[in-house]
Amino acid sequence: MIVAMQEKATEEQVNAVINAMEEAGVNVHRTTGEFQVILAGVGPTAGLDLTKFEMLPGVLNVHRISAPYKLAGRAFRPEGTVVEFGDGVKGNGKGAKIGGEKVAVVAGPCAIENREQIFAIAECVKTAGGGFLRGGAFKPRSSPYSFQGLGIPGLELMREAADANGLLVVSEVMEISQIEPMLPLVDCFQVGARNMQNFNLLRELGQVRKPILLKRGIAATVEELLLSSEYILAGGNYQVILCERGIRTYETATRNTMDIAAIPVLKKLSHLPVVADPSHGTGRRDMVPAMAKAAVAAGADALLIEIHPNADKAVSDAAQTLYLDQFEKLVAELRVIATAVGRTL
Amino acid sequence: MIVAMQEKATEEQVNAVINAMEEAGVNVHRTTGEFQVILAGVGPTAGLDLTKFEMLPGVLNVHRISAPYKLAGRAFRPEGTVVEFGDGVKGNGKGAKIGGEKVAVVAGPCAIENREQIFAIAECVKTAGGGFLRGGAFKPRSSPYSFQGLGIPGLELMREAADANGLLVVSEVMEISQIEPMLPLVDCFQVGARNMQNFNLLRELGQVRKPILLKRGIAATVEELLLSSEYILAGGNYQVILCERGIRTYETATRNTMDIAAIPVLKKLSHLPVVADPSHGTGRRDMVPAMAKAAVAAGADALLIEIHPNADKAVSDAAQTLYLDQFEKLVAELRVIATAVGRTL
Amino acid sequence: MIVAMQEKATEEQVNAVINAMEEAGVNVHRTTGEFQVILAGVGPTAGLDLTKFEMLPGVLNVHRISAPYKLAGRAFRPEGTVVEFGDGVKGNGKGAKIGGEKVAVVAGPCAIENREQIFAIAECVKTAGGGFLRGGAFKPRSSPYSFQGLGIPGLELMREAADANGLLVVSEVMEISQIEPMLPLVDCFQVGARNMQNFNLLRELGQVRKPILLKRGIAATVEELLLSSEYILAGGNYQVILCERGIRTYETATRNTMDIAAIPVLKKLSHLPVVADPSHGTGRRDMVPAMAKAAVAAGADALLIEIHPNADKAVSDAAQTLYLDQFEKLVAELRVIATAVGRTL
Amino acid sequence: MIVAMQEKATEEQVNAVINAMEEAGVNVHRTTGEFQVILAGVGPTAGLDLTKFEMLPGVLNVHRISAPYKLAGRAFRPEGTVVEFGDGVKGNGKGAKIGGEKVAVVAGPCAIENREQIFAIAECVKTAGGGFLRGGAFKPRSSPYSFQGLGIPGLELMREAADANGLLVVSEVMEISQIEPMLPLVDCFQVGARNMQNFNLLRELGQVRKPILLKRGIAATVEELLLSSEYILAGGNYQVILCERGIRTYETATRNTMDIAAIPVLKKLSHLPVVADPSHGTGRRDMVPAMAKAAVAAGADALLIEIHPNADKAVSDAAQTLYLDQFEKLVAELRVIATAVGRTL
Repeated sequence: MIVAMQEKATEEQVNAVINAMEEAGVNVHRTTGEFQVILAGVGPTAGLDLTKFEMLPGVLNVHRISAPYKLAGRAFRPEGTVVEFGDGVKGNGKGAKIGGEKVAVVAGPCAIENREQIFAIAECVKTAGGGFLRGGAFKPRSSPYSFQGLGIPGLELMREAADANGLLVVSEVMEISQIEPMLPLVDCFQVGARNMQNFNLLRELGQVRKPILLKRGIAATVEELLLSSEYILAGGNYQVILCERGIRTYETATRNTMDIAAIPVLKKLSHLPVVADPSHGTGRRDMVPAMAKAAVAAGADALLIEIHPNADKAVSDAAQTLYLDQFEKLVAELRVIATAVGRTL
Repeated sequence: MIVAMQEKATEEQVNAVINAMEEAGVNVHRTTGEFQVILAGVGPTAGLDLTKFEMLPGVLNVHRISAPYKLAGRAFRPEGTVVEFGDGVKGNGKGAKIGGEKVAVVAGPCAIENREQIFAIAECVKTAGGGFLRGGAFKPRSSPYSFQGLGIPGLELMREAADANGLLVVSEVMEISQIEPMLPLVDCFQVGARNMQNFNLLRELGQVRKPILLKRGIAATVEELLLSSEYILAGGNYQVILCERGIRTYETATRNTMDIAAIPVLKKLSHLPVVADPSHGTGRRDMVPAMAKAAVAAGADALLIEIHPNADKAVSDAAQTLYLDQFEKLVAELRVIATAVGRTL
Repeated sequence: MIVAMQEKATEEQVNAVINAMEEAGVNVHRTTGEFQVILAGVGPTAGLDLTKFEMLPGVLNVHRISAPYKLAGRAFRPEGTVVEFGDGVKGNGKGAKIGGEKVAVVAGPCAIENREQIFAIAECVKTAGGGFLRGGAFKPRSSPYSFQGLGIPGLELMREAADANGLLVVSEVMEISQIEPMLPLVDCFQVGARNMQNFNLLRELGQVRKPILLKRGIAATVEELLLSSEYILAGGNYQVILCERGIRTYETATRNTMDIAAIPVLKKLSHLPVVADPSHGTGRRDMVPAMAKAAVAAGADALLIEIHPNADKAVSDAAQTLYLDQFEKLVAELRVIATAVGRTL
Repeated sequence: MIVAMQEKATEEQVNAVINAMEEAGVNVHRTTGEFQVILAGVGPTAGLDLTKFEMLPGVLNVHRISAPYKLAGRAFRPEGTVVEFGDGVKGNGKGAKIGGEKVAVVAGPCAIENREQIFAIAECVKTAGGGFLRGGAFKPRSSPYSFQGLGIPGLELMREAADANGLLVVSEVMEISQIEPMLPLVDCFQVGARNMQNFNLLRELGQVRKPILLKRGIAATVEELLLSSEYILAGGNYQVILCERGIRTYETATRNTMDIAAIPVLKKLSHLPVVADPSHGTGRRDMVPAMAKAAVAAGADALLIEIHPNADKAVSDAAQTLYLDQFEKLVAELRVIATAVGRTL
């Protein structure tokens, strides 16, 4: 950290700041320039709230120099993390990975609705060559009057459908109490955007030994996403996949503004793989293909795509859900883009 | 709801949209204009995802006409809600209210640190004439390396300090499992900005019979805040206080951008009382007084202010925390503003 | 400026950065810490693009320490600037000021429409005790199909109406070519939000010897507003008034999000007076009074309010325009708030 | 337009709204539902400020149904516009187009600095197969202390360099007075982000018979960009190219947040071709390649890329400027992506 003192700061004020920094466990190097004093601090600043130094008398401003996260930083694993699924809970994995040379495809409905729906989707995912089936059993809905999901019975249906097609299962966990019952049914836990800073939940997931797909909050910075992943990593679970799914801006032509640049930025700052979700990123079925292609071109390691055999009647997120034939067509197009950037899909 | 069809929409497309609306339980009134067909839908649209109709063939656009919330709407209680604390859990309340003619002052440290700190603060709040002591026992921190709070023992300290000074206690609940142990210790549960859309938690708090102070999410719209309050109201708990605490924008001169206009907007749209939090709203101690005054002038029913006897050394949110003498001075100034807008404080 | 080098930066890279800083005219002080090298640069960094140093090999990050503006900074005139209007172009001023103890009221229609309208408004402003009549003659409209203003003849009408009531005239200039014809007609030029970074226009206004009311751009930071004012100040025109008029955020309940905190922030960073525009800040007539009060409570030196005798039929910005009786009532209420914060109005 | 009346609206209020709509030239169709009255308005609403109806007594809310632009809408030219450069002012064009099957590459320095620089760049653009040389002669800089450009002499240098390499010239116009002297030197005028709503300038450019590259404002919606293009089209100049160059959000990891989705959205809403500017979109040289690829994958018709033989020493925008060899490598990679989406480059 760096503290720049005001030109007119007194020696007493400088010393008070040095004391405050040292009390926080930071080693201080002082530079007395022609006009002002600069204090460089080295030490355990990761968990330190630097803004507190800004209010000390005589301080001009304060800057963070080292990233506030450690385990999530690229330097921790320069070669990059490949999340491996082993054989999954039911032997479907067959060495599936996210983060390697192959771009993974994770697809499914926003909400699991019934047996027929989820089996039709699972078959389609398999046919298209995707390895992961994703569907929601617990639905975080902004209105209490909206459909709230089938719960564990829905998850059991999805597990069956996945097993029948050799697929791995991804599903969202919303509550600590859901982890235990979900464990035997999923191959990967998803943490939704609204829970990205539910730190108790993240801490618990750090104790789990399954991959976690962590979605970026709707107004979270890239740095905050990495700090949230740090909660999971700090628990010893290094199988974390980061997800860009659009952020909230003033633009309303799309549901969210998909921050495609976050993909290469995250790949540079962190060793964790990155998945892109063009369905939530745009909220519009007609924009999903263009954005899925853009994400692969920009270096995404996987795609999360919402599909439904009867998309217009899906109980949630209908507008952004692809029909099965649209999905199959898109996967074929994505394969060409993946090749163009030196990968497979 | 209103669906405007495209000029070139076929009769078949119009009928398909009418069918889809009726399937959703909506009564449809059709207007065939010179150029296009307009479909007006009346019925249970509160929990309905209207965007799904936008993707139907032939549809130009879709508009929501009635608010997606019901119980939180002003029309539900045109006279406004006054949250009453009775005597609180320990008889300290003495008819304290939020939402009436008197502007309430809720103050305390970001985090409860130790006995000495919380007693000094409680005494100051009492002296200044505030009725509510607020402090965090469970701290949601973006870094896993930051101080995470004293937990229930901290809350017990705060309860003691409050009782010694005849104050009511407000504290944040982060997890369903914390509700039970907190119940005998607090007079009002706070739901933090990061949990505004933790719907499981909100649903549980709908079952509690204590006031809930619900903070606006960092990127939540006013409408989403009201929808979240609806989860609590729908459970039968009508004692909800809404809190404006700043939203995230591109501006970095302050920690958040305090949306003062949300105060009169919420008062117009809803019957629930509104509290303003200039501490989080600005993140800067030197801006808290001006914004506290602005909030009262704009019609806030209460203020939430972070204070600490040794503000610069507070373990969290130090930069935005007032010293006790600054707080006492501010309360005196606010009293004048309250009078100027026809209220007391 | 401060450059923090990466831990693994080579001596050669450090020297290359030092050279680049020196080439930019900056004096460099080097601190070699235990882990990394810190380079502190002192010199003419105001106009320097610091991001260029971020891409140099071995650099971790770069921080600006001194503000990029000079003449607009509080340090340049610690006592604050009071903009004086003298007697204005027609002897109406009588010592009118913006920035002193008295809060000024500037009011008028969004667009000058006709003689009857502008005379009725001028009379109302005078009756209410406001000293400034403001109206648009050239209208920047986002649609080419909207009313574009009456031009100079409209301005002549407003001058007449102002003179008849002893008021000063404020009007927006959109183009360098309009300065000359406007000079004999206005007492203060307004630069609109869309032109805040029209640097050619600002540079020309730096040559004018009349006060300039500079509006903050819809997505401009406080720092950028001050940089824009610097263009005018650098030309020798020190009579600049800064205007907060709402910024664009994701919230749509109001037309813009009024950044009330920008008022005390600007007062702290700069010596220039600050005017608040609750009409554009909210875009809703029913929210203007609450926000006008909030602005005065937060320290605004003046208010800009849109009024019209037949507000609902105003040719532009009708929704945010007050009726004349609403304005008179508001001014009376504002007077009480001004007193409560130790000022007059 | 649609006006939804409140449930309790009186007949008198309904009639007042109908009158107000008719006065605005709109034909009104009334639907009297079970609970409320819906008024559908058809007519010249493009230039109409609909918010004014929201404040009328008894009105619940108002919705725009048809787009506020006409000439820029896709329906005006369903087949899409291909901007043709003919032979340009100096016969260099050879049938160059933007908007056709071939993705165009427009490259050059942020600012023209000297003969050696611009000739080196022109040669590189030609070698890489790009057809357009772009460089700034007039620089809009947020600080008055930054380099402000070489002006017309700089443009003459660029013209020479372009002619020597058979390239077309694109340069930014900031002021109406610059149009005339620029006319014989450029093949395409660029309107910068800060001037997107400089309506006087746009109106003048509507009279010019040369292509206009119109950049999206830093906080402009897609709809506002199209409304601004409408000013040019309404003047009879149909040669407009829209440019996505990043918008301002709360994220600071990149200089702006590049709204890649705006590319397919604009292609759907409008017939005008779309160019992407990953240099300003990211502000970071290391992110330009990934975002250039994403833009082509998402359907961009052209790319705008800043390059410089000595990028780190560029007088402006150095951090986002590619070295010439980086550019050549990137163009080769983009060619593969273009092929993957069925185009050439």
